[in-house]
Amino acid sequence: MYSVDLNCDLGESFGAYKIGQDEEILKFITSANIACGFHAGDPNVMNNTVKLALLNNVSIGAHPGLPDLIGFGRRNIKITREEAYNMVVYQVGALSAFVKAEGGKLQHVKTHGALYNMAARDERLAEAIAEAVYKIEPELILFGPYQSELIKAGKKLGLRTASEVFADRNYRVDGSLTPRGEKDAVITDTEKAVNRVIRMIKEGKVMSDQSEDIEIKADTICIHGDGTHALEFADKISKAIKKSNIDIKSFEMEKLKDEK
Amino acid sequence: MYSVDLNCDLGESFGAYKIGQDEEILKFITSANIACGFHAGDPNVMNNTVKLALLNNVSIGAHPGLPDLIGFGRRNIKITREEAYNMVVYQVGALSAFVKAEGGKLQHVKTHGALYNMAARDERLAEAIAEAVYKIEPELILFGPYQSELIKAGKKLGLRTASEVFADRNYRVDGSLTPRGEKDAVITDTEKAVNRVIRMIKEGKVMSDQSEDIEIKADTICIHGDGTHALEFADKISKAIKKSNIDIKSFEMEKLKDEK
Amino acid sequence: MYSVDLNCDLGESFGAYKIGQDEEILKFITSANIACGFHAGDPNVMNNTVKLALLNNVSIGAHPGLPDLIGFGRRNIKITREEAYNMVVYQVGALSAFVKAEGGKLQHVKTHGALYNMAARDERLAEAIAEAVYKIEPELILFGPYQSELIKAGKKLGLRTASEVFADRNYRVDGSLTPRGEKDAVITDTEKAVNRVIRMIKEGKVMSDQSEDIEIKADTICIHGDGTHALEFADKISKAIKKSNIDIKSFEMEKLKDEK
Amino acid sequence: MYSVDLNCDLGESFGAYKIGQDEEILKFITSANIACGFHAGDPNVMNNTVKLALLNNVSIGAHPGLPDLIGFGRRNIKITREEAYNMVVYQVGALSAFVKAEGGKLQHVKTHGALYNMAARDERLAEAIAEAVYKIEPELILFGPYQSELIKAGKKLGLRTASEVFADRNYRVDGSLTPRGEKDAVITDTEKAVNRVIRMIKEGKVMSDQSEDIEIKADTICIHGDGTHALEFADKISKAIKKSNIDIKSFEMEKLKDEK
Repeated sequence: MYSVDLNCDLGESFGAYKIGQDEEILKFITSANIACGFHAGDPNVMNNTVKLALLNNVSIGAHPGLPDLIGFGRRNIKITREEAYNMVVYQVGALSAFVKAEGGKLQHVKTHGALYNMAARDERLAEAIAEAVYKIEPELILFGPYQSELIKAGKKLGLRTASEVFADRNYRVDGSLTPRGEKDAVITDTEKAVNRVIRMIKEGKVMSDQSEDIEIKADTICIHGDGTHALEFADKISKAIKKSNIDIKSFEMEKLKDEK
Repeated sequence: MYSVDLNCDLGESFGAYKIGQDEEILKFITSANIACGFHAGDPNVMNNTVKLALLNNVSIGAHPGLPDLIGFGRRNIKITREEAYNMVVYQVGALSAFVKAEGGKLQHVKTHGALYNMAARDERLAEAIAEAVYKIEPELILFGPYQSELIKAGKKLGLRTASEVFADRNYRVDGSLTPRGEKDAVITDTEKAVNRVIRMIKEGKVMSDQSEDIEIKADTICIHGDGTHALEFADKISKAIKKSNIDIKSFEMEKLKDEK
Repeated sequence: MYSVDLNCDLGESFGAYKIGQDEEILKFITSANIACGFHAGDPNVMNNTVKLALLNNVSIGAHPGLPDLIGFGRRNIKITREEAYNMVVYQVGALSAFVKAEGGKLQHVKTHGALYNMAARDERLAEAIAEAVYKIEPELILFGPYQSELIKAGKKLGLRTASEVFADRNYRVDGSLTPRGEKDAVITDTEKAVNRVIRMIKEGKVMSDQSEDIEIKADTICIHGDGTHALEFADKISKAIKKSNIDIKSFEMEKLKDEK
Repeated sequence: MYSVDLNCDLGESFGAYKIGQDEEILKFITSANIACGFHAGDPNVMNNTVKLALLNNVSIGAHPGLPDLIGFGRRNIKITREEAYNMVVYQVGALSAFVKAEGGKLQHVKTHGALYNMAARDERLAEAIAEAVYKIEPELILFGPYQSELIKAGKKLGLRTASEVFADRNYRVDGSLTPRGEKDAVITDTEKAVNRVIRMIKEGKVMSDQSEDIEIKADTICIHGDGTHALEFADKISKAIKKSNIDIKSFEMEKLKDEK
């Protein structure tokens, strides 16, 4: 039987600033990527979000980003391998402590925004990130785009990896996302998005923006928690997936089941 | 036989900014309190300092502070119990990850500057900090002034605690430090400082600034790593302590010895 | 004829984080206090907010705060006189440049949150802030609570000052605000709030939380721009004021009129 | 008669962190580029440095950088035109207020580190920076490398510009600096450096790293204030320049002389 994980970026509020509908979206997802204070989040938000995720039986991942709160971690910063390693150790360690303090266990690491995109293409950064994750805890799962440098670097070190797809984004022939700003970058037709996702899971294929099928692997699907239609979309996609006889569960849940 | 730990605040550099003589002072101390990025330190500095401490067989503690780099964590900020708890979990978790990544083990937590001073007197903050330390790892040792709220809160939770004295500072009759700025706040005569420290260890007493003996407990002595005479002072005090038949070792070393 | 200024804190968004309904509230107010990047706001938000205020013919003030984005400038930080002076010069200078670049003129300075409250009571901080404002531009108007240290310090230096009242807050007998958290701190009955404000303007009196009239001066009324009922309240209060034959205009507008 | 300005980056300390020998280097230079709190400097440091410069009759420039204290403004960040404009307005405005408060006048703007280097090559960023400077005060002088986009953008707007050379750096045939890290990037032989600088001033030429003369313009020479030999080098170069019958003075001093 097919199985997939549904993940969402959470804990992106900061101080008096609120972003996202964390409590509501947690009802639909199986893995939460929690911001670690560099691009978003603060210690108070992190603690609350960890508690919320545990309460909802949602598996927890760290979501480290570039140190750029003004830019929300979306602006490329030219960092060295060492800087990438250290900023990931720092942030994953910080989040990990909140999870441990609440009796939970960290499941995965997904880098955020520009750090995710840069590392997907840059072997040097990808290896630094994979090493950071491995040295903190070799059982952690590293998220990254299919066939990206992140996934390669994780596998090389013996880390478990999860190939992530985006439910509402178009892909180019080379497997990368159609850049925002370009026509058709975002898929707004929910039904179309849902059908694409189901095909990615079952057939390992998706139609690229040049109307050509490309190979893809959907271990985990990223959905958004902010925006007007986020909850509606989350509801629709999770219902459609279940209806297609695909199990929605996190890797930790899968493992717990295997252990029984 | 008497035994004491010598601790020093390390890893207080930040980016291009250097403070302290970490490599040199590590030769004299047994426990390093490493800054965690809020009042000083950054992920790169933290990693380097952790490696240096391990290389020198110096036990490692986290040194979390208030989020105030401009004020070096020395300005009181009115924080809630929850904020104190969360900022300690965050910082100790971050440092802990660097220690774990290098195969080491965190020994203790010593809060920094204004956070240390506020929590020494404020039961509510002290309990929040002790709880943070306990929930991260109940084996950790909490540093604090003798009979302070920090020590009380730690003991109440079942944490091991270490009563810290300052080698070059004067004490008031109530056991608190003579505030900087007041006459005689700092003891500049090295020999006098050394003799006071040895008496604190052996007799559990120190002469207060009002020429009256007070009770004190010296599990660990704080020395400074910056300033012109820091290394010379560290050298003199460690030699004098050894000469007085007092072992200088950290709590971790003591424990390892006991386990043999 | 009576006249009053209506002010609101604006430009409190930061990066991807949005707070407030700046565009809408600008229709009702005559003076905007724009955050300067320490407790809220960033250079991009500041520029946009300055342009919006000019577009709406709303007079502009700088709204400097403590360097505490996580705490939104609401947590007391123990700062020196020099630190207060310097952080006000810095922030007012930064905002002033945006205003000048757009061909506008800065009208006033209102300190934010904890900096406002601390300086209202602390002569030393109040004098530092007044000096900062005076040395940047002696024509600027300093906002503060009636008979506060801020107002006194401003007058002493020869600055124009404006006594500010809060439309939806209760007052204690000593003229300070009933602290949030206490019963009756906030006046939720719009009609009652409106009537109190009109009495403050016309009679210079307000009923304190101990049912005793106290003297007050209402040069400018602070209303809020966030919250569900902010716009509705702004609409009601401005209509009621006009209906009571009180002119709503900023100090700059008043001055321009005088010059004709 | 020939004339040249000697500039140095100052005010780069931050909180408890000290960098540079500002008081000493001020004896040798005619223009100070003062950090504005983003890559280095803080409001307290800025005020002190402005006062020091005025005391030493050294002309003052703003030295705005990228918001990256950990990276000291040396890491490229992918910013938009608007972000560049706003961060320059903000920082120049802040520094400008300190200068005005002390009765001085801002002479110039020199962007720092990665912002300087990116804008030297990127027309879009250069124009944003020039526009920011012009809208704050059209009398300000914009510093940049000879024939760079910065200089071009400044001239296009009608700003005065100053072509800056580096006393201890080698140049490539295209006029850019030989990148640090490459052989011969830095000229360590003081005498050689001095002779090159004098030739740049008098002949408008410098020998590139490929032993080919290139055209250059030396309106202002950048020297360093930190490092062991900084003061010695500053002393030697200023003496040698004077000995070659070249006046050392800032643009403001030149202008004051012209006005007499």
